[in-house]
Amino acid sequence: MALFTGALLAAVIIVVAGDCKPRSAFTAKMTSSMEGEPEKDLPIVFDSALTNVGNDYNPTDGKFTTRIAGTYVFSLTLMSKLSSDSTAYGCLLLNGEEQVCVWSNGINGHEMSSNTITVKLKSGDVVDNILKAGTRFALHNAGQAGYCSFTGFLLYPEV
Amino acid sequence: MALFTGALLAAVIIVVAGDCKPRSAFTAKMTSSMEGEPEKDLPIVFDSALTNVGNDYNPTDGKFTTRIAGTYVFSLTLMSKLSSDSTAYGCLLLNGEEQVCVWSNGINGHEMSSNTITVKLKSGDVVDNILKAGTRFALHNAGQAGYCSFTGFLLYPEV
Amino acid sequence: MALFTGALLAAVIIVVAGDCKPRSAFTAKMTSSMEGEPEKDLPIVFDSALTNVGNDYNPTDGKFTTRIAGTYVFSLTLMSKLSSDSTAYGCLLLNGEEQVCVWSNGINGHEMSSNTITVKLKSGDVVDNILKAGTRFALHNAGQAGYCSFTGFLLYPEV
Repeated sequence: MALFTGALLAAVIIVVAGDCKPRSAFTAKMTSSMEGEPEKDLPIVFDSALTNVGNDYNPTDGKFTTRIAGTYVFSLTLMSKLSSDSTAYGCLLLNGEEQVCVWSNGINGHEMSSNTITVKLKSGDVVDNILKAGTRFALHNAGQAGYCSFTGFLLYPEV
Repeated sequence: MALFTGALLAAVIIVVAGDCKPRSAFTAKMTSSMEGEPEKDLPIVFDSALTNVGNDYNPTDGKFTTRIAGTYVFSLTLMSKLSSDSTAYGCLLLNGEEQVCVWSNGINGHEMSSNTITVKLKSGDVVDNILKAGTRFALHNAGQAGYCSFTGFLLYPEV
Repeated sequence: MALFTGALLAAVIIVVAGDCKPRSAFTAKMTSSMEGEPEKDLPIVFDSALTNVGNDYNPTDGKFTTRIAGTYVFSLTLMSKLSSDSTAYGCLLLNGEEQVCVWSNGINGHEMSSNTITVKLKSGDVVDNILKAGTRFALHNAGQAGYCSFTGFLLYPEV
């Protein structure tokens, strides 16, 4: 009976531990505008964190580093500069590889575009974003409005 | 001992059942268009609920009131009116404070923009949206198309 | 024997707890462009799956078929063709009924728009997307950029 109870207790501990759900969720906004460079992709640094459950997003370098392996959701929103020849052209990267891009032209006004993905990540995987190389590419922001924002969260921890 | 074991088993069942319970998710669409006022932000009332798990969103006043504390995801989508001087300019508020905004110009046609955030909420916290003050700000809709929509869901209940 | 029974019980409990985590999540990108037809809505086939946890999304016909009943989140992103008279006009359908639409004009450049919803699904329910009937409606894509993308995931399994 002691063994039986012990086994049951073990199960409880495992279930409760599982119940202490692994969590990771962030939203960060870029508070300044930026211009593209001729021949180099530039990292987009969303410097102001609205939410950072687990602190897996680094507002200093714009990188999300995977602490908990699993399936994540990411959403990227960018706003164009107002200019007849300017476009907000950025991509979301997983370990340096483009997963999805966003494009918004600025001919008649600032315009925003978004893209949302699910992706499976291993511990240590890095997700960040770039403004594509080219002097016509630029991003516009205004204080804490969050016209350029980056959101991510853990949907399913790996089991 | 059998009683103890039984109680333990019951506890496990409760933990497991409770673990799957706290839920809150909604999507609401605005079915009419609206025009901004000169000096007053106006609440955006998404009057047609597509989904309202938990009934935490009120389609009469456009307010989401937090029943379950936790980390939530919200997504706001707005469409501009077609006009050479009109812009869809709205913001998502938490207890009256702007969290993130959306901007879409209407010079050449209706255009949509979205923004998605994660945010930690306490019980009783209110999330809603405003069309910013200004006669040039307006939103366009057409029936149940959902060009202006508001979505939110509980990601992680507070533990 | 007690040890054996206890271990078995522990296993059952863990399995049941783990069973609280049915999973379904996908993202698919369309890799080619498409033009609308005069009088017929066309299915949008997002042919390249970035993620497909549970394989509930079919990249051959663009249909998501519900395996696990529950509350889901879907996000649709479309990009317009660059043309003075072209618009990206598509809708997300549940069993053939429009839930929400996306509209993006292409007058001055490619432009993207998104919409995100939560929706309750029964086992067997089908979610897919259409490009609306009309020769002025079209979608633009470029390789794996994912300017037109479709994402969905199970938020709460039915209990």
